[in-house]
Amino acid sequence: MTPTAPAIDLDALRGILGSVVAPWVAELDLQLQQATLGEVRLALPVAPKHVHGGGVLCGQSMMAAADTAMILAICTHLGSFQPMTTVQLQTSFLRPIPGNAGTASVVARVLRMGRKLVFGEIEILDARGELAAHATTTYALV
Amino acid sequence: MTPTAPAIDLDALRGILGSVVAPWVAELDLQLQQATLGEVRLALPVAPKHVHGGGVLCGQSMMAAADTAMILAICTHLGSFQPMTTVQLQTSFLRPIPGNAGTASVVARVLRMGRKLVFGEIEILDARGELAAHATTTYALV
Amino acid sequence: MTPTAPAIDLDALRGILGSVVAPWVAELDLQLQQATLGEVRLALPVAPKHVHGGGVLCGQSMMAAADTAMILAICTHLGSFQPMTTVQLQTSFLRPIPGNAGTASVVARVLRMGRKLVFGEIEILDARGELAAHATTTYALV
Amino acid sequence: MTPTAPAIDLDALRGILGSVVAPWVAELDLQLQQATLGEVRLALPVAPKHVHGGGVLCGQSMMAAADTAMILAICTHLGSFQPMTTVQLQTSFLRPIPGNAGTASVVARVLRMGRKLVFGEIEILDARGELAAHATTTYALV
Repeated sequence: MTPTAPAIDLDALRGILGSVVAPWVAELDLQLQQATLGEVRLALPVAPKHVHGGGVLCGQSMMAAADTAMILAICTHLGSFQPMTTVQLQTSFLRPIPGNAGTASVVARVLRMGRKLVFGEIEILDARGELAAHATTTYALV
Repeated sequence: MTPTAPAIDLDALRGILGSVVAPWVAELDLQLQQATLGEVRLALPVAPKHVHGGGVLCGQSMMAAADTAMILAICTHLGSFQPMTTVQLQTSFLRPIPGNAGTASVVARVLRMGRKLVFGEIEILDARGELAAHATTTYALV
Repeated sequence: MTPTAPAIDLDALRGILGSVVAPWVAELDLQLQQATLGEVRLALPVAPKHVHGGGVLCGQSMMAAADTAMILAICTHLGSFQPMTTVQLQTSFLRPIPGNAGTASVVARVLRMGRKLVFGEIEILDARGELAAHATTTYALV
Repeated sequence: MTPTAPAIDLDALRGILGSVVAPWVAELDLQLQQATLGEVRLALPVAPKHVHGGGVLCGQSMMAAADTAMILAICTHLGSFQPMTTVQLQTSFLRPIPGNAGTASVVARVLRMGRKLVFGEIEILDARGELAAHATTTYALV
């Protein structure tokens, strides 16, 4: 299936990323790389401040990145930012990402774009492209 | 049911909180308030850096607080910190916490302490004690 | 906290249980025992047809019972049955229920009754009252 | 990516399906159609006994099908049935499947095959191939 162009361009998505999220979440330093209709890919730098005592990227950073990426994936359908709220987010942690792994990737995908509810999934991939975490989520458009 | 004393004291739990989590998670500024066997209560200050563009405490901070609190709840059984990993964490967001709400509370409770797997639930309460978010989680002891 | 009377009586709830669910789900033979505002308790007989090859109550029956019980818990607020749909349901399985355990209990509780979305949790308890499974769920009122 | 042959043949998988699940789950009448390493596809007939009062396939049947399909997907790695237990299963319901829809499909996929824990996802597709439900799950090998 050929990807369809998003209803919003990359610069506008980057503007949303830069203005909507809380300052603490902005510290994730997520970098938007690609967007098609219903899907975005972001880079998540594995910075020392996100590495816990066990020497791996902490799960809190992965959940935060997943939630944030989904907002942008939804905006590829909406064409602009509109108020929305996370109803639930479930994350499974499959394999650790070493603290010196460089950059992880976050791929957020809309599975179902309803009028009121949106369902999506998010993959966190390590630098080799292996699945490190997988999340599913429901958003409500408000 | 009268709470049972934890297998570890508050100062030791605070030491774990101060040494195990990633620096970015430490910025949540979680304050341990109470601990009994299988349950901990922490204060989560609703600081401006955790408030998103909609004016409420961001979900990312609540998920991170939930995950972090659970580590301490598990340590009340273990008696000390031992390596563990989050297998999955599911969070539902029930009501927003306003950005000027002062302090939220995080209560993490072990539902089942297995030898290898631990199940728990976490409540995030707003300043009035209303349930704002509810999470369930599985940890693996490694 | 003293329980508040439900907005619907037990007979009406039993009528809903008997008329709304699919015939296959009716085979769970759930028996409504108690209802207060926002909470119901049902008996789940551990019948041989719900026991899998490992000799324990199958998880499928527990998930089905949880989902079904939640409908009734929501009706204790609504006062009658109204169309609703499960948005998501997450179940954790904490300990097995032996196939000869007699009767399990299902307690469904509304955590947040919104106008459009309802959040709840469900406990499945074995015959001794130990927590065997724990579920959280979101329903949409339609 | 070319699918790899499963470590077990279709007949053996059908034998597992026929012998391991509880009699009530066998009433789902799931039919194994395909298996590759880490992935199985089954047909789920939308029979009247699985249709609830709203005229659509009930969610309980979809959750039960998802859980059951995952066992077979795991066996494509194991090469035979081995004792395992569902740790948790999270299902999101995206669109209803009409009660006269004929046959739904269930695709279960192993996302991560660990030594002790297995992570997977399951899609329930309606007769047109649209995603109706999506589940993620953790199994423990015992």
